Amino acid sequence: MAKHKVIFDTDPGIDDAMALLYLHHHPDIELLGITTVFGNARIETTTRNALYLKQAWDIAAPVAKGAGVTLDPARVDREPPTIVHGDNGLGNIAMPEVIDLPLDPRPAHRFLIDTIKAHPGEIELVAVGRMTNLALALREAPEIAGLVKQVVIMGGGITANGNVTPVAEANIHGDPEAADAVMTAPWKVVLIGLDVTAKTIMTRAQLADIGRAGGNRAQLVVDVSQYYLGFYETVVADGMMVHDSCAAAYVTNPELFTTQSGAIRVVCGGIADGQTIQKPDGRGFPPNPWDGFPSQLAAVGIESEKVLKLIHDVIAQGA
Amino acid sequence: MAKHKVIFDTDPGIDDAMALLYLHHHPDIELLGITTVFGNARIETTTRNALYLKQAWDIAAPVAKGAGVTLDPARVDREPPTIVHGDNGLGNIAMPEVIDLPLDPRPAHRFLIDTIKAHPGEIELVAVGRMTNLALALREAPEIAGLVKQVVIMGGGITANGNVTPVAEANIHGDPEAADAVMTAPWKVVLIGLDVTAKTIMTRAQLADIGRAGGNRAQLVVDVSQYYLGFYETVVADGMMVHDSCAAAYVTNPELFTTQSGAIRVVCGGIADGQTIQKPDGRGFPPNPWDGFPSQLAAVGIESEKVLKLIHDVIAQGA
Repeated sequence: MAKHKVIFDTDPGIDDAMALLYLHHHPDIELLGITTVFGNARIETTTRNALYLKQAWDIAAPVAKGAGVTLDPARVDREPPTIVHGDNGLGNIAMPEVIDLPLDPRPAHRFLIDTIKAHPGEIELVAVGRMTNLALALREAPEIAGLVKQVVIMGGGITANGNVTPVAEANIHGDPEAADAVMTAPWKVVLIGLDVTAKTIMTRAQLADIGRAGGNRAQLVVDVSQYYLGFYETVVADGMMVHDSCAAAYVTNPELFTTQSGAIRVVCGGIADGQTIQKPDGRGFPPNPWDGFPSQLAAVGIESEKVLKLIHDVIAQGA
Repeated sequence: MAKHKVIFDTDPGIDDAMALLYLHHHPDIELLGITTVFGNARIETTTRNALYLKQAWDIAAPVAKGAGVTLDPARVDREPPTIVHGDNGLGNIAMPEVIDLPLDPRPAHRFLIDTIKAHPGEIELVAVGRMTNLALALREAPEIAGLVKQVVIMGGGITANGNVTPVAEANIHGDPEAADAVMTAPWKVVLIGLDVTAKTIMTRAQLADIGRAGGNRAQLVVDVSQYYLGFYETVVADGMMVHDSCAAAYVTNPELFTTQSGAIRVVCGGIADGQTIQKPDGRGFPPNPWDGFPSQLAAVGIESEKVLKLIHDVIAQGA
């Protein structure tokens, strides 16, 4: 079987780091690039963190630096969520200010366009930060939509559960205009949202076992996750949500998810700002803003225990 | 036990008619007034229909004519949903153009204010149309909020299921600004939304049995519901949703419902226009538009079979 050719669009970010190691270790995945975006920390920080993880884990794929502001420049800039990911975006572990590795010379959206065009029909985008880079790529080269195999997104949710507002998830809320452009483009989107990621909780014991079983690379995931576990103490009984790894797991094991199909749009402005709303296929409504947009998939079910074991085994197996 | 003193704010409307007969027949309810609002049909039609039902069922309570346009006059007027309720709002049964009964001389919102002030702490509003009359009453006399026992609303939903858009229910979507004013006022609101009403489906057999058991008054409910059953053929396997009667049943039997508490706001504008969004109490979020508003109840569970039997028995017992 041909390997999955993946570009990982990410804002590392603690759960981003775990997902990156999953993609790096999985034998069926060929990681062609890492594109960075602002979100869990500022763009300089998430880019430095991507280089740090590339170096620490000996990842061959290039890192291309992406967007540091929202698609719509009129959006107000918000402070990064240091309460979740730490001041340095990786749980405040000690690391160098600057990593002595070169960046890809292209901005992330140009790297995306070039790589997609070089592998028509083969690229799977795994996007676990704000959708800004993908939207910029679509704006500059809309023809890429027809050349991408699928876009797997960690973000949003379709039963009105949010984590930054009652209905909005952080990645989508962070750039709603970009997300709406990505959801409505004529490519295949799979939304891995809070409906499934919020119920996929890795316990402290399971995380510790990854460190024991997986050696130094896995141990780095354990180290950066300690701060994140602290944040989650107020949210769950034991452990942490592994949002981004759920999206990575979908690439290799979609059979562990159930999905619902229908056009997806993103609310831009107002009290529901950043909410993802799907119009389920087969439901009839009067003429509405979902009409004419492609049907996409949103995950509504997940076999959480199997996904957690998969993440554990893939990360540990690279020891 | 003192009877529940109810004012029924309604836009009859087929399921409105069933709920009205429930309120009229229930021995624990004292119906103090019927206020009409536009929605299922234009205000002239829903008011005529309220008088028709008052006459047919020998209801003592006065009928006060209410709003015919949205609270915000800039809202675009929409055509009534004749596909659901028929051209005459009562399933196209034969009835007179004009009913020879007097209306209360006051507009509905003034009737609400006066009646609430005459019975401080006792009135329960059962509102099953657009929220325009209630919002007008609050605007003119905000002090009534502290004098009402509770406001039971058929409308909205909190898990993002709509019936006129993917996230909006018709009553709330028909006047979002009014609904937001009602949800955020300092009185006790209970939202009986699509989360529970869409799973409370009276079968054709159960409806027919109401007619057999209940005599002429119940038979009129059966007659007007035939058109509504036709609409629901494309929605459910057998029968029809009895939305408004669920709100009436909550007044007498709240133990058949489970509720979730938290501030509720209504989206005004954009693709989520008319969505009701609850911030569940106890969930932490950054500062947001729900802060500072009173916690309200939204129904999230219902014992549908018991509610349907209750509706059946109350309507039939008045034979």
